[in-house]
Amino acid sequence: MLNITDKLIDKIKAVGNPTVAGLDTRLEFLPESMRKNAKSGEDVAKAITEYNCNLIDALCGIVPAVKIQSAYYEMYAHFGIYAMYTTAAYAMSRGMAVMADVKRNDIGATAEAYAAAYLGTTGYDYITVNPYPGYDGIKPFVDACERNGKGIFVLARMSNPSAAELQNLDVGGEPLYMRVGSLIEKWGSGLIGEHGYSAVGAVVGATNPQEARELRNRFKSVFFLVPGYGAQGGKGADAAAAFDENGGGAIVNNSRGIIAAHMIDRYNGMSYVDAAVAAACDMRDDLAKALKL
Amino acid sequence: MLNITDKLIDKIKAVGNPTVAGLDTRLEFLPESMRKNAKSGEDVAKAITEYNCNLIDALCGIVPAVKIQSAYYEMYAHFGIYAMYTTAAYAMSRGMAVMADVKRNDIGATAEAYAAAYLGTTGYDYITVNPYPGYDGIKPFVDACERNGKGIFVLARMSNPSAAELQNLDVGGEPLYMRVGSLIEKWGSGLIGEHGYSAVGAVVGATNPQEARELRNRFKSVFFLVPGYGAQGGKGADAAAAFDENGGGAIVNNSRGIIAAHMIDRYNGMSYVDAAVAAACDMRDDLAKALKL
Repeated sequence: MLNITDKLIDKIKAVGNPTVAGLDTRLEFLPESMRKNAKSGEDVAKAITEYNCNLIDALCGIVPAVKIQSAYYEMYAHFGIYAMYTTAAYAMSRGMAVMADVKRNDIGATAEAYAAAYLGTTGYDYITVNPYPGYDGIKPFVDACERNGKGIFVLARMSNPSAAELQNLDVGGEPLYMRVGSLIEKWGSGLIGEHGYSAVGAVVGATNPQEARELRNRFKSVFFLVPGYGAQGGKGADAAAAFDENGGGAIVNNSRGIIAAHMIDRYNGMSYVDAAVAAACDMRDDLAKALKL
Repeated sequence: MLNITDKLIDKIKAVGNPTVAGLDTRLEFLPESMRKNAKSGEDVAKAITEYNCNLIDALCGIVPAVKIQSAYYEMYAHFGIYAMYTTAAYAMSRGMAVMADVKRNDIGATAEAYAAAYLGTTGYDYITVNPYPGYDGIKPFVDACERNGKGIFVLARMSNPSAAELQNLDVGGEPLYMRVGSLIEKWGSGLIGEHGYSAVGAVVGATNPQEARELRNRFKSVFFLVPGYGAQGGKGADAAAAFDENGGGAIVNNSRGIIAAHMIDRYNGMSYVDAAVAAACDMRDDLAKALKL
């Protein structure tokens, strides 16, 4: 079975754009015409699905992947979960890699249930996972990656302001995020693909380039999912710290900056679809410049 | 608004049993008669809901709370989520406190969406939360607790074998779980109820009594949700370490040991409902003995 990160890298190369569009879709992003009849949770979830599918149609030739932020779907309970699965299936049908940003974590038996939920033969290509329970809470996900050709991104150094509160604590001469990086490298050592990167990757924020560079230099086989570009303040030059010397090894997420680009001054007056395409192209160019490609 | 942990403590006192029944309901627990017609995910989710509601009817006078493990519902996608909400609403209607064991965590904006999903005016009384993102990923949950009279349990020291891998790392002379305990105490300091315990509690496993005792002695205002009793190996005497000198300050979870008690030799031949009641009474007595009540 082809390693999922090999597949992701091939998709990135095909479009020349290491960007993942974050489908953190909120009702307020939708144009009035799509929002006005959405009275119930079911209506909202349907409108969000339609919004997502239109974006996927427009973006699938420009960005290689989407990341669906589960929280914005869980808000609408079962209707939202249906919208999330429907969006994922549609993105896959359009050839995109699909990540479910669920940050799940639990004891072994429960992690097995989560792996069954998200990393079965259908579902998603990747999910995000929290490392706090240690290896027996990670192993069921790694096993599912191996069995079903899937991948995970384990939180190492997040992009939010207070991430350092635990993640930068000194644990025997190195910050916790480096220790977690070592564990991620070890956990994924059996799932390294032909391009040299494992199906077990790490979440490394764009908001702390020095730390991203430190992680990048040390963990050569760990592919990075990089949040924090755009609305959270990260620039192309910041995100570049997460990439290897060939401009590979990472994919950068942008959520609001793409899917709600029509609400940003720069793209004012454009439809949400056109604005998303323009923003995705601008981000591609920003990253290419930063990566000197 | 009455503090949720005051309410929980009152419910515990009313039945004299600091036990939460964990509804980690799996298809294989159901009797053949309930399982045989469950062919689709929708059927399974309905059968699980029926199983849960029968247990709730039988247990609501004996145990004060249920904890619904989200993973076992997410396995059935939107059908499972509907089952989870239906189960929660039914348990509330029978006067039980309802915890959603979701272990959610994310950056601030996303944590707000999770808080809206789980800690709105309806939904659940408590959810479990992972501390890895630090305070800005916790604050939206704490705010929802204050606004809507809800509560959270933040993971401190989990019950699984590899929990120590990160949680016991030395961070400046104390293990990480103690540092997390200090943070939990601080995060919940504004939400302390009349019984002296905060709406912001901690998850502290029964499998490491010495560490539970250390946490209990230091964090007087933090109420503990204690997993690990029963199938994971914790006994009443182990769980007792999480309680204060008055036999308060904690509630002990038991999942398979109650809801699948009919599959344990000791309760062989009993219906699942009768076995659950017998197991819950045995656990109540085991805890009372250990707590010398």
